[in-house]
Amino acid sequence: VALRQLTALRKGEQTKAAILDAALTLASRDGLEGLTIGLLADRMDMSKSGVFAHFGSREDLQIEVVREYHRRFEEEVFFPALKEKRGLPRLVRMFENWVVRVTQEIDSGCIYISGAVEFDERPGVVRDELFEMIHTWQGALVKAAGQAVEMQHLTVDTDPKQLVFEMHGLILALHHDARFLKQPGSVPRARAAFKRLIHSYSTQEHNHT
Amino acid sequence: VALRQLTALRKGEQTKAAILDAALTLASRDGLEGLTIGLLADRMDMSKSGVFAHFGSREDLQIEVVREYHRRFEEEVFFPALKEKRGLPRLVRMFENWVVRVTQEIDSGCIYISGAVEFDERPGVVRDELFEMIHTWQGALVKAAGQAVEMQHLTVDTDPKQLVFEMHGLILALHHDARFLKQPGSVPRARAAFKRLIHSYSTQEHNHT
Repeated sequence: VALRQLTALRKGEQTKAAILDAALTLASRDGLEGLTIGLLADRMDMSKSGVFAHFGSREDLQIEVVREYHRRFEEEVFFPALKEKRGLPRLVRMFENWVVRVTQEIDSGCIYISGAVEFDERPGVVRDELFEMIHTWQGALVKAAGQAVEMQHLTVDTDPKQLVFEMHGLILALHHDARFLKQPGSVPRARAAFKRLIHSYSTQEHNHT
Repeated sequence: VALRQLTALRKGEQTKAAILDAALTLASRDGLEGLTIGLLADRMDMSKSGVFAHFGSREDLQIEVVREYHRRFEEEVFFPALKEKRGLPRLVRMFENWVVRVTQEIDSGCIYISGAVEFDERPGVVRDELFEMIHTWQGALVKAAGQAVEMQHLTVDTDPKQLVFEMHGLILALHHDARFLKQPGSVPRARAAFKRLIHSYSTQEHNHT
């Protein structure tokens, strides 16, 4: 009986993971607000009550989608960058991984970017969750930029928050131009801009003059 | 009779302008896709058919909203900048007016920014109109940046499109941080970043060294 229960539990987890995966695809395409239990049930070939059994409410589902998105984002963008040396090498890797991630999302959409627009005037738990996740990522970037200053890769008067604001702007412009304007060459533009940005904050420049 | 017809015509135009104004407010808040004839009729204290009499369809209404938004944007951001001297002074004024405009929109929302997210995967006439308007504004910026190069305010190897890409990124980051994150100090950050950006493209730097 114990084994059968365990098997049922595992099957339940697998189903939940499969639903979450489909929900992430839908939310990337139609936005978090476009995500409905009905649409999801249809896609999963399940009944609505079957989906409800795994996620108590639409709001719970949206929150789990944001968390799953964040988990994947960290896995692809943040964690691999931690293998790089502290300071500028790590910061550069974080930006590059971020560019690659956004590039992959040009067709599917980015939940952080569309979510920020969808939820800018919708207070509540979903907005709070999105805020927390974006805040966490920006915090990691600010920390990495701060370490680059400590290690004197960037000039001592560099404001890490200012630098991260500017890096974020490049990602947003890349997403806009590639996804909405379908402008070719947006990725090289973002990379060139970042290089210029880092150069303007870099101690290298001072070493040369 | 002619006078009465003329008066009726004027009254019709005034009503249409009032509906458009209300539609612009609604679309800024809820997005272009959140704009419905029903919601608008309710706000105007009119019947749905009364609103339909002025705008043939919801799509026509959305297009007129985009055009009206663009008209106001040009009036507040672009035209006043034309009074500045060609070259860098004009480009700087365009950015500054843009910052002021986005700052005013922190509470109401920006149709260009939210529209780009709403319509990135919705082909059709509304998307085409949005695309056209954004393209026009970016074209005006590229032209102004090109003139700044011609007049040797910016270095000869400046790529105007690259510079405009980076300026746009700052506006998007400002909008995101001020509107979604409610981060104080985002406006000074955008201005500081622009100053740094222009400096890095400026011939001034070379004159000093």
